[in-house]
Amino acid sequence: MKIILFCPEIPQNTGNIVRTCAATHSELILVRPLGFSTSSRMLKRSGLDYWKNVPILEIDHLEEYLDQSSYPFYFFSSKAHIPYTDVRYTEKSQLIFGNETSGLPPCFFERWPDRFVTIPIHPNARCLNLSNAVAIGLYEALRQRQFDFSLEEDRNNNPIMVTERAETKAEAQGR
Amino acid sequence: MKIILFCPEIPQNTGNIVRTCAATHSELILVRPLGFSTSSRMLKRSGLDYWKNVPILEIDHLEEYLDQSSYPFYFFSSKAHIPYTDVRYTEKSQLIFGNETSGLPPCFFERWPDRFVTIPIHPNARCLNLSNAVAIGLYEALRQRQFDFSLEEDRNNNPIMVTERAETKAEAQGR
Repeated sequence: MKIILFCPEIPQNTGNIVRTCAATHSELILVRPLGFSTSSRMLKRSGLDYWKNVPILEIDHLEEYLDQSSYPFYFFSSKAHIPYTDVRYTEKSQLIFGNETSGLPPCFFERWPDRFVTIPIHPNARCLNLSNAVAIGLYEALRQRQFDFSLEEDRNNNPIMVTERAETKAEAQGR
Repeated sequence: MKIILFCPEIPQNTGNIVRTCAATHSELILVRPLGFSTSSRMLKRSGLDYWKNVPILEIDHLEEYLDQSSYPFYFFSSKAHIPYTDVRYTEKSQLIFGNETSGLPPCFFERWPDRFVTIPIHPNARCLNLSNAVAIGLYEALRQRQFDFSLEEDRNNNPIMVTERAETKAEAQGR
């Protein structure tokens, strides 16, 4: 699974997202410009311990990157209407999140409106924190994949037991 | 839905959790002692805008509270084995999270071992950030409930469209 952050501004958020990626062995792409230095003390405070375990790529042009990518991608936006839980994620899915103040630029929505999904919140509420939104989206994708990062290693190391759920079987029958 | 934080230490985390509760109209219980003042500048910076919309109760004794509560509750712990996705949540479910450095005290596990669930992470990884763990747990519970906080209001206000998913029907048939 891959997380793409479009021009993130707040280092603590990216630090927390690095931590989530480290915990799930997900990759991270940062689209420049960033609102901080990736070597800044703040970022180190938020995520240094985890940073070395996460493959991080920095790019300048998201649209070019997506044009060249052969894997599915989804934009997470508070302005979208399709719930993020409607997507069927694969292990190659790429989840894209806008920045803390301005979200994602309209050009992406104009080009790929059917790739925009939303995390439902109460109608009268403001948006979620960025690192929380990433965690929610990523864990829905991992749930659908039965958390297979640990299933694989569970056979050898037995560190976390993940059982197959009845719901999963029902889902399979429903397809 | 109700979130219970056991003796949280870092105000930014609780601030983010207040924001998540505000966005989902969830209630929040803080078990004292807290590692910060709820009127501190740091907490205000992290969550002031959202604070006034969240019903927050502070208590001193979690065990007593749970003994008197008639609603189901679940402890989220990195040391547990049952995946959090195995639980069938209701709108009255209470999700309990330990603090950032020491988690939950062993006495709870000794008394309620079958109420302990875990958010799977990679076997070699350290734990998730507290506010991210809350967001992941709460949104799984809300997903199972078809995000009904917005379904209810959607009929009147039409702010966020939440469609019933095919998966949900399959789940219902599977039961």
